[in-house]
Amino acid sequence: MRQAALGYTGMMTEQNPLIVFTPSGKRGRFAMGTPVLTAARQLGVDIDSVCGGRAICGRCQINIGEGEFAKHGITSLASHVNARTETEARYDRIKGLASDRRLSCQTRIEGDLVVDVPPESQVHKQVVRKEADTRVIALDPATHLYYIEVEEPDMHKPSSDLERVYGALKSQWDIENLSTDLGVLAGLQKALRKGEWKITCAVFSRPAGGGNRLAAIWPGYHDNLFGLAIDVGSTTIAAHLTNLSSGEVAASAGLMNPQIRFGEDLMSRVSYVMMNAGGEKELTSAIRGALNELAKAVAKQAGIEITDILEVVLVGNPVMHHLFLGIDPTELGGAPFALADGLALTFPARDMGLHLNHGAFAYVLPCIAGHVGADAAAMALSEAPHESDEIMLCVDVGTNAEIILGSKQRLLACSSPTGPAFEGAQISCGQRAAPGAIERLRIDPATLEPRYKVIGCDLWSDEAGFEQAVADTGVTGICGSGIIEAIAEMYLAGIISQDGLMDGGFAVRSPRIESYKRTFNYIIRQPTDNSGPIIRITQNDVRAIQMAKAALYAGVRLLMDKLGIDAPDKIRLAGAFGSHIDMKYAMILGLIPDCDLARVQSAGNAAGTGARIALLNKAARDEIEKLVRRIEKIETAVEPMFQQHLVEAMAIPHKTAAFTELKKVVTLPPPKTVETLGADGSGRPPRRRG
Amino acid sequence: MRQAALGYTGMMTEQNPLIVFTPSGKRGRFAMGTPVLTAARQLGVDIDSVCGGRAICGRCQINIGEGEFAKHGITSLASHVNARTETEARYDRIKGLASDRRLSCQTRIEGDLVVDVPPESQVHKQVVRKEADTRVIALDPATHLYYIEVEEPDMHKPSSDLERVYGALKSQWDIENLSTDLGVLAGLQKALRKGEWKITCAVFSRPAGGGNRLAAIWPGYHDNLFGLAIDVGSTTIAAHLTNLSSGEVAASAGLMNPQIRFGEDLMSRVSYVMMNAGGEKELTSAIRGALNELAKAVAKQAGIEITDILEVVLVGNPVMHHLFLGIDPTELGGAPFALADGLALTFPARDMGLHLNHGAFAYVLPCIAGHVGADAAAMALSEAPHESDEIMLCVDVGTNAEIILGSKQRLLACSSPTGPAFEGAQISCGQRAAPGAIERLRIDPATLEPRYKVIGCDLWSDEAGFEQAVADTGVTGICGSGIIEAIAEMYLAGIISQDGLMDGGFAVRSPRIESYKRTFNYIIRQPTDNSGPIIRITQNDVRAIQMAKAALYAGVRLLMDKLGIDAPDKIRLAGAFGSHIDMKYAMILGLIPDCDLARVQSAGNAAGTGARIALLNKAARDEIEKLVRRIEKIETAVEPMFQQHLVEAMAIPHKTAAFTELKKVVTLPPPKTVETLGADGSGRPPRRRG
Repeated sequence: MRQAALGYTGMMTEQNPLIVFTPSGKRGRFAMGTPVLTAARQLGVDIDSVCGGRAICGRCQINIGEGEFAKHGITSLASHVNARTETEARYDRIKGLASDRRLSCQTRIEGDLVVDVPPESQVHKQVVRKEADTRVIALDPATHLYYIEVEEPDMHKPSSDLERVYGALKSQWDIENLSTDLGVLAGLQKALRKGEWKITCAVFSRPAGGGNRLAAIWPGYHDNLFGLAIDVGSTTIAAHLTNLSSGEVAASAGLMNPQIRFGEDLMSRVSYVMMNAGGEKELTSAIRGALNELAKAVAKQAGIEITDILEVVLVGNPVMHHLFLGIDPTELGGAPFALADGLALTFPARDMGLHLNHGAFAYVLPCIAGHVGADAAAMALSEAPHESDEIMLCVDVGTNAEIILGSKQRLLACSSPTGPAFEGAQISCGQRAAPGAIERLRIDPATLEPRYKVIGCDLWSDEAGFEQAVADTGVTGICGSGIIEAIAEMYLAGIISQDGLMDGGFAVRSPRIESYKRTFNYIIRQPTDNSGPIIRITQNDVRAIQMAKAALYAGVRLLMDKLGIDAPDKIRLAGAFGSHIDMKYAMILGLIPDCDLARVQSAGNAAGTGARIALLNKAARDEIEKLVRRIEKIETAVEPMFQQHLVEAMAIPHKTAAFTELKKVVTLPPPKTVETLGADGSGRPPRRRG
Repeated sequence: MRQAALGYTGMMTEQNPLIVFTPSGKRGRFAMGTPVLTAARQLGVDIDSVCGGRAICGRCQINIGEGEFAKHGITSLASHVNARTETEARYDRIKGLASDRRLSCQTRIEGDLVVDVPPESQVHKQVVRKEADTRVIALDPATHLYYIEVEEPDMHKPSSDLERVYGALKSQWDIENLSTDLGVLAGLQKALRKGEWKITCAVFSRPAGGGNRLAAIWPGYHDNLFGLAIDVGSTTIAAHLTNLSSGEVAASAGLMNPQIRFGEDLMSRVSYVMMNAGGEKELTSAIRGALNELAKAVAKQAGIEITDILEVVLVGNPVMHHLFLGIDPTELGGAPFALADGLALTFPARDMGLHLNHGAFAYVLPCIAGHVGADAAAMALSEAPHESDEIMLCVDVGTNAEIILGSKQRLLACSSPTGPAFEGAQISCGQRAAPGAIERLRIDPATLEPRYKVIGCDLWSDEAGFEQAVADTGVTGICGSGIIEAIAEMYLAGIISQDGLMDGGFAVRSPRIESYKRTFNYIIRQPTDNSGPIIRITQNDVRAIQMAKAALYAGVRLLMDKLGIDAPDKIRLAGAFGSHIDMKYAMILGLIPDCDLARVQSAGNAAGTGARIALLNKAARDEIEKLVRRIEKIETAVEPMFQQHLVEAMAIPHKTAAFTELKKVVTLPPPKTVETLGADGSGRPPRRRG
């Protein structure tokens, strides 16, 4: 800052030119002719470079801009640097260089300067997430590329090729404590000679144990460096191929988890393992096969070589976590639900049978507890309750709900056995969220007539052209979010009572209330032809959802008790369920505690986002490892209050913020006659007319 | 030492009892009832223990002995400790405990004590080598076993099994910074439950990068920990299975290098790789197959499981080194002879395709230069020229001679292209050292009659019963040491001149001098029946040996020049050649420079010994890595003086210490008549009669 104080007057003297970098504000004086990149490095200015100042990578682009000096009346700075060089012209011809851009490695200081480093030239670019209030992550992956020029062998000073590569990484990039593997060694000599003693090295800075790992090499200059962030769900596996130089997602792909053939839900897969010798190997092999398939698919989609993938970050619930790691999940199937490993793991991806670059590393986020997995850890990394001043509730709803509650002061986690009802399983007409599934539903409280939307169709069922629009997929069932809305609307319409009982008295008002073995069903859809199934909600369906939501709420309630609060300040619902569900209905049914509705949001694929954060920023790995140790783990199975909360949460609450908004006074209209149901006298509900 | 000064008077007071350990002399005062093992640990006394004081391993045995106190008139110390416990009695019943021995973990201090720690109870036992003047290595391998008791999972404090294992290693053994691999994780939960929360852990303390690696686990107490030291020679591969707890060699086995089918000598194998696409993979696969075969053989021989092998240390010349690592050796086939890697390597043995314990680590010693391999580094570790005050010459003779010269002041290394003549190749009747090969030979200077010994037979050829004794093997050829002796004896007898020319004039004195195409041969053996080949030394054979010995000497001479000396103070010849050769004859021929014959010794299998040292003592790995960096590498190909030395060294020297001892005045006896050659007039030399 002493130099900065001398700043302007310096221009008038014989002193060295002053250079100021924006946006960092870093400044200093350098001898005439100093390359701008050199000056930037000496000042610690964040300018990217893979080729180390050889005008190959084009990462170090700058603008010679107007800035502080302009304020002092200097309008032309062009003469304060050398003219665009032949090297830059060549770069422009090959890769393109905007007219206002220079390569900082080729730009020499010839007078006082203001240099702007655009975001894309910064090493630690901010990887901004789309959502408004979420975290901003700086790009700083564990693997970097380094272009080096290696000394040729000299019989007068015998040394091995590897030693000279290490020497170049030290002298040209200041990287030490290197080790490597046999795969790199096997290709080293050919790469050096093919690249005429110029190679690009991928260095991984976080191997287990420490040091730096020379993970891969390419002859000459190589600019492709990618990582995979994979969220291994019980139902679907989602992979995001991410450019580790830009932070951009290059391709995404999803796949059904092929383990489904061994059991729809987690516990049936654990049972499969328990009942079949070697079953865990089949399940591991299935999931690893799918991971390789996904990797190939995204590489193809992005037009890169699979060997350009140097890292993979994996998350998943504890059972998936164990299975992709090759660990028998049997212990997770019963008390005391002991995880084999809850710590983060770093290991060569090939040890997991993944066919990426031979030197690629896998990082697996830590699990939190027996039923709170690495996916929940990833959600924590994504939603960052540990950075929140307010109390935040984060929930990932699956067969088990993984729940994290707290703030930067204190964090608690538990899981709650919601079962698969929220995913449409164990519901009479339930199905997975797929085209043909009812996902939205409204009931007219006066007529008890439903209107609904189906996945894959933009029209509501009472809009013109709906039946034609769904002709292909049919209306095949009702998915998780549809069930929630249906039951909440039934409650709002008075069809079910607060304790979840279907009111048979309504049968006289509408033939949609159907009597069935001493209980009642609510008929949503009954096609006139046999084009599809009758879709209805049964009393058992209501009970299943009540059980699930009671479990979820009881887990949350337990953590709120521990924290001594009655409601969180904000809520994030993660996963597919969280993305599809209408928060109002979730709150009407009491899935989640009372909260200002505006502060209840979907966290999207928080697990996938967390995986991507750990992929893009190596410090995030330390962060989540530290955080997970700090989270207090609550096992609901040993908490006496959990059962009580569960029982109490069976009923549908009558006062929630959402309820207040939506609950209308249902004035009983006069009973309708059977005739209104349809001209054919079949008793079917009438179809809406377009 | 203040406590020691108080020592004796302390007995008279109320102070805590004094305990003195021998042979270390460490002493201190401890509360009554303190276990002796606890006292030993607090004082830093070197007592072994795997089970951590649970009377399982029996490693911590001590003698409650007479010692310092006895000198003060105390004769009975028995009452100063508790009586043998039931636990010790049980140990005695199961594994045996000598009557004068106690388990220090069970022995409690009940008064002043002298405790003797016998060598076998010391952790850092000295692993003494057989040879008189060689190094004493303390046992301190990179892998140790630790028996731990692990907390059971507790739903009130959820934590993963691995975390509790790490916690036990920290609290019970003070081991931190642990990482592990997927193999250990896959077996962890079953092992813990099978062992009822007691397991034995193998921890490897030198993974690449740092930290400690949990390499393997066994349920309950496990006492078998082995390592393999393997010397991969071009011709033979030798493996020594070593008990890492006792330092003892449990089994040894050798195998012909199966790469021989791709070429007898190194350069023909390199040529094979150059001429055949994928040839390096065939060679790598062949050698790795042999390594696995050897591992299985030694494990079977020692009666252990292959999974008890947790470490493997490998050495070999640069071509073997590259091939077992899976590196194409082509670059070693021509100038500038660049090694892919000259640094030491540590990696999971499975990465090399070795089927030992899944978590076993491989350590490969560093190479010194393009033709001075990890075997030469191992020789340096074994012979320790860097610890010598005197100038030491260490030579490993193979297709290339690997030469190290110097002392603790300065060390130089080079290789010299001796070719395969010393191994019996390129010699008309040459063969590898195997039963039937002539290995010793004397020539009567008066009669020019030879007498010789054959491998596999204890008799000399002129002793009774020789022909019967060799009837099975036959006399099939002459091996390296035999050729050296034959040519040296021919020189001593005057048959060849100092410049290596066979003197045709001798043909008149003995039919053993045979004329052949303008040169002469010396017939060693010509069977009367056709029971075997005629064995002779040709002029070309003499020339081949002259070339080889000149190359060897020129390399040594070059290093002596650099060091400014004319002779080393001592010489070690390593390898099979060094073991079999008679040093006198080597010196007569001028293979090695003049030196006091008493100070010229075989180093035995120095490469194998060096590998074993690196296996048994982890600090030796640091030592050799540091040493190799310090050794000055001389490339003979670029040294102008090398060629001159080579030419000059072709002649047989006429004044060496050995020559002085052996050279007898050869008085020419009167010419013999043809009749003396044999009764059948065939011209065959007469057979010696038993």
